[in-house]
Formats: sequence, C-alpha cells, structure tokens
Amino acid sequence: MPKPILTLTTDFGLSDHYVGTMKGVILGICPRAEMVDISHQVSPFEIAEGAWLIAQAYSWFPPKTVHLVVVDPGVGTSRRPIVMEAAGQYFVAPDNGVLAMVYAREKHKIRLISNERYFRQPVSQTFHGRDIFAPAAAHLAAGATPARLGKVVEDYLRPSFDKPQRSGKRTWSGRILKIDRFGNIITNFHASDFPDLERRGFTMAIGPHQIGTLAHHYAESGPGELFLIAGSSGYFEVSVNQGSAAKRIGCEAGAAAELTVW
Amino acid sequence: MPKPILTLTTDFGLSDHYVGTMKGVILGICPRAEMVDISHQVSPFEIAEGAWLIAQAYSWFPPKTVHLVVVDPGVGTSRRPIVMEAAGQYFVAPDNGVLAMVYAREKHKIRLISNERYFRQPVSQTFHGRDIFAPAAAHLAAGATPARLGKVVEDYLRPSFDKPQRSGKRTWSGRILKIDRFGNIITNFHASDFPDLERRGFTMAIGPHQIGTLAHHYAESGPGELFLIAGSSGYFEVSVNQGSAAKRIGCEAGAAAELTVW
Amino acid sequence: MPKPILTLTTDFGLSDHYVGTMKGVILGICPRAEMVDISHQVSPFEIAEGAWLIAQAYSWFPPKTVHLVVVDPGVGTSRRPIVMEAAGQYFVAPDNGVLAMVYAREKHKIRLISNERYFRQPVSQTFHGRDIFAPAAAHLAAGATPARLGKVVEDYLRPSFDKPQRSGKRTWSGRILKIDRFGNIITNFHASDFPDLERRGFTMAIGPHQIGTLAHHYAESGPGELFLIAGSSGYFEVSVNQGSAAKRIGCEAGAAAELTVW
Repeated sequence: MPKPILTLTTDFGLSDHYVGTMKGVILGICPRAEMVDISHQVSPFEIAEGAWLIAQAYSWFPPKTVHLVVVDPGVGTSRRPIVMEAAGQYFVAPDNGVLAMVYAREKHKIRLISNERYFRQPVSQTFHGRDIFAPAAAHLAAGATPARLGKVVEDYLRPSFDKPQRSGKRTWSGRILKIDRFGNIITNFHASDFPDLERRGFTMAIGPHQIGTLAHHYAESGPGELFLIAGSSGYFEVSVNQGSAAKRIGCEAGAAAELTVW
Repeated sequence: MPKPILTLTTDFGLSDHYVGTMKGVILGICPRAEMVDISHQVSPFEIAEGAWLIAQAYSWFPPKTVHLVVVDPGVGTSRRPIVMEAAGQYFVAPDNGVLAMVYAREKHKIRLISNERYFRQPVSQTFHGRDIFAPAAAHLAAGATPARLGKVVEDYLRPSFDKPQRSGKRTWSGRILKIDRFGNIITNFHASDFPDLERRGFTMAIGPHQIGTLAHHYAESGPGELFLIAGSSGYFEVSVNQGSAAKRIGCEAGAAAELTVW
Repeated sequence: MPKPILTLTTDFGLSDHYVGTMKGVILGICPRAEMVDISHQVSPFEIAEGAWLIAQAYSWFPPKTVHLVVVDPGVGTSRRPIVMEAAGQYFVAPDNGVLAMVYAREKHKIRLISNERYFRQPVSQTFHGRDIFAPAAAHLAAGATPARLGKVVEDYLRPSFDKPQRSGKRTWSGRILKIDRFGNIITNFHASDFPDLERRGFTMAIGPHQIGTLAHHYAESGPGELFLIAGSSGYFEVSVNQGSAAKRIGCEAGAAAELTVW
C-alpha cells in the first residue's frame, strides 16, 4: 500500500523550529506519512501568495494527497479552520482565502474543522499550525474521513485576487501574484483568457515600464530585453533572458499590472 | 514496525552540500530512517541558538526519535562527541552545551561517543558531522544501544544561557535567545516563572525600548504597538501585531533584556 | 527491499513551488522513492557551482542512488537531456557540463534521454525539470534501465572549470568554485595535486590578498588571520577562524585565484 502523501505550505520560514515541530506531531499521528515541502517561504501573512503557490502545485500530486496550508495572520482570533475535498485530494487551512485559487477552478466541498478530538490538546493561542491544522491533516492522511472533522459550510471566504478586472474597452487591471526565484514577475493574467495577444498586439504596463513583446521560450530574446511569456503555470510572466525582471523594474508581489490589447 | 525517526539541527545552511552529504551517510547505515529537518539555519557557531531550537522541538516527536544536533565551532579540537538519553529519546551532539536546554529540564544520561567502529573512516579534521555524529545517530536509529557508543560521563559542559539572573529586588537580567522569522523577539524569561506579571505591572527593557503591555494573542494590540506575549514555547516574546518587533527595536540574538516587576 | 534513493540539486530556490512540484511528479511515478535535497540554492544559471555541489555529494550515497541535477539556463533551446551511469549510480541532467566534475573522475557511460514515453506530456517550453528530468529520474528509481531512455553518446559537453591551469614555472591560475555558508572560499586547487605546499612555501593570491599559511584545523589560527586549509572535499579553501573569509576578502564564486609555490 503506497504511503499517504502530505504536503506543507507555510509562511514559517526555515530558520525556526515551527515546521519541524509540525512534522513531529504529524509523524506521531501518521507514522507512514510521506511529507513534501511545497514552500515555507511565503512572505509573512501574504495570503494571496500562499493561495498562488498551492494552486500551482496541487495538481501534480497523486490522488488522496493531503495539502496542509498555514498562512494564518488571524491565529488566535475567530477565523475558522477548514478542510476541503477537491480534485480527489484534501486541503487543510484557515478560512481566510488561502485555498481560493483552488476552489475557483475545482468542484469542491468545504467543512469546518470543529471536532476537538482531532486537535492536539491543549490548543495554544499562537500556534494552530501545530495544534489544529497539522493534527487534522495527519488524521486525514491516516485514513479519517473529512466528515469526521466537522460539518459542510457554504459561507467560507471568497476573495478575488485571482483574476484581472476589465477596466475599459481594451484594458484590464491585474496584479503581480509572485516574484519567483529568478526574478520572473508572475501576473494574474491567464494565457488561456488572452489567446490572441500576439496577433493583435498589446502593452503590459507595470509602473512606468511597458512590455510589448511575447516570447515562446526564455532564450529567445536578447539579453536585457523585457518580454512577456506564458509561464509553466499558464499565467503570463514578465521576464528577462538570464536576468531578473523584478530587479529591472523594481516591483513586488501585490503591485498593479495593466494590460491593453490593440 | 514504524520507521525510526531522525531529526537534524545544524548551522550548515541549505546552500552547501553538507546536509545532503550527512543524509547520504545516514541512509547508507539506516535505509529505513525517516529524516526530519528541524533547522539548518542556526546562525554560524551560535551554540545558544541551536540549544534553544532543539529544546523547543524535541518533545513533539515520538519516543525513540534520534535528534542529531551539529553546531560545532570546536570541530578539530579536543571537544568530545556525546550521546544523551532523555525523555525516552536520543540526542547526538558535540559536548559544547548545545544540549543544555534539554538536560536542564529532563532526567538524562550522557555518554561519550568513543567507539571508533561507529565512525565513518577516515575521520576528517573538518567535518565530524559527516564522519562521527551522523554515523552515530544512524546506528542508534538502526537499533544500536547508546552503551555501544561509549561510557557514561558526568563532566559534560554546563553552560547557563537558559535562565535570567536576579539582579536586584525587583529586577532580572536576561537575554534574547532568538529572533524568529516574523521578527518576534524570544527571551529567556519563562512565563511559568513569572506568573503574575499582568496583575503586578512590569517593564521589559531592551536597549532604550520599554515594553509594559501583556497580550494574550497576536491580534489583540493595535498595529505598531510593542507588547509581551507568552509564545507557543512558554517563553515571553516581544512582538508587534503583523510586524517585526526585531526591526522596530533593532536587536539581535544574544542581546540583553531586563525585567522589572512592580 | 530498501527504498530507492533520489537526490535533487537545482537552482530553483525554496520560495517557489518548483521543487515541490517535481517531487509530486516523482512520487506519482515512484511512490517508494526516498528523496534527499542536496541543495536548491545553486546561484541561478551557475552551472559550475551545480557541478561542484553534486561532485562533492554523490560518493556519500549508497549504490543505485539516482541524482537529479537541474541547473538549466538553456531550457527551451536545443540542449539535450542526458542520463549517466557512473560509480554504480545514476545521474540525470541537461547536457551543459553540470555533470562534468563527476565524469572527470569516474568511469562513465552517457546516454541521451530521447524516449518520449518517459516524459510527462505535454512537455512545456519552460519547465523541463518537471516534464523531462524528474520523470526520467523517477522511472530509473522505479527500476527502468538507462538503456530504455535512449542511446549512448560520446559528444557530450566537456567544459574545463575543475582544474587550475599552469601559468608559469611556479604559478597556477585557478578560480573560486564556491563560497560556503561560513564564508569559506573553496578553490579548484585539489590538495592531492599540491602535496608539499607547506614544506616548500607558497602564496595564494585572491585580488590584492595574499595567503601564505597552511592550517590543519579551523581552530588553529588566531582570530582574523586568513589561512589555507584542505577542506573536507579535498580542495584547498581560504578560511578565517570563526569568521567569513569571503567577507574579509570581498570575493565571489567565479573569481580568479593564483598560486605560487616556492
């Protein structure tokens, strides 16, 4: 029988003991769990970035994988823990929108996690990742059904950071979702929503910078030239061949990106 | 039979091959080992920070877990390798105080690691993590008893960085143990040693900054206000709601923190 | 039967989803794989640094280990994917020299990876790590023979960044391969090629700095003094006791290092 897979996505970083501590709790409940880190470098408290990361990663994992996502600025307040079934997998997270880019595209069922028998007791005020989310995820990996954790809810949070808004006849206002390790600027414009950019001509504006070239692979353009490319995730990215587009432009996740199509 | 769990805590960082190399050695000796990283981002040579990290993490792991802790500024000198039994678990480390915050609170038995049959030969002058500590930990995970590694010793190092010192009738001098990823400033004042701070009133001084408010969760205070909170570890931390207290104050691990109780 | 071991070395960093995504693909093909990260912090596009890292790590892993090495500035161009058998292990990488420091020292057989049945379809233009290299490595870990992946080739890339060049009767011109976490400056001068430095006397020059002392362990010299030491890898490193030699000198990977022997 294959080992249950459990992924982790957090803003805890790797210099503290928090991630290791959650893994100790998980192995105590589900010793067979195969744990895979997606990233622990989500910018602190940046829910949209966490939402983006898990949405890029989940579909590459086998059925029944349990995804634990803890970006949780509201820990200690009344925000609720939830478990979602979607795409044949499970997702455990706070109800703050961090799963929104998955439930925007997949049929899903969401439940509150309310059964305290699945919590690690006593529950601290400051570390629900260890005391609520990790135990719930580990029990799912060990075979508990989501129905054991709590009741289905419909009033979960529905944020809207995953699509650009139409702002004129030929213009859309979007945003930067993420700067990747290579300095590529990942926007929330999905290539499939804008299929004929190249034929029609376009301008993507980020601050004072204008990008008007669409490339098909990273090595296609000359050194230093900014271009748009459909990244491996399907979203358009602003890139520079063998350089950092984010440094060239000087921008961060969350900033505005405006598209005009001719 | 569940897999043996082996955790790793080092100051090797993640950009070099050192951690991967140790894991290769471990899997060569104990192929079933389930390895969990606590952190490899201990500040270089900072024994107190490593001591703090493993002391926060170990109790969340199942019985028989082997904890490998390599923060080892004295590699190549005569400092000794040790193995400790405590809390139903095993700890392998240099005898330089890096296990002190565990043996301060747990019944323990400490042995030298002297049986060279458990070393990886030849032993280098510069990488005992790979040649002595990792093999010893892997052999424990594979079922060797600590007694096979060497004899019990009583003269292991006893540093004293884990408790504040009383410096006056109403004052204690402590220190900053760790700045966490979110900029929370973790002190060596344990909440259980100061149970009535809120009722009596207090001031925590770090450099020119004075903190006089105790909060019960991170979201309780207004943005930008410094407050004290009992962190998930039980120690008091200086924090700011959704911000970095360490950046506000401008301090580092090792700096002084003085408490006055009214 | 022991689990197949699969190591990963990339320049993807840990803040993105790329590494986690590759691991999801690997577990989908080979659920029993034991994955070990060597490093994902190779400087972006720095083939020599990746070559250095895998060459330091591979020999510490058990036979049959599969090493996946993705430092791939040419993704999307015509550079070819290859699989190498060497030292009783397997290596999967782009044909850009990133395996050169392994095949410089081991008997080896190199094949193209051309059998598209082992690719993840559709193959993207921008992420061959996920669509070609990870699946090929996972199929090897699951038991496929290298011969299934493609034909033996002899015209693989042979770069020459792994040895200093003789530049005079008593001088050699080399380079800095890597700055490690502690600021040690790792050169491409192998200690076994220069066995009598200490007896004859020498000067290692990096920029305006001259190092003329050879130490046998890190704690031997006074604080602040630069010295040469044969590191755990066998190559000479420039170091400072409990400090960063790279910060003292102000140098980076790729810079020149000149040795004069008297």
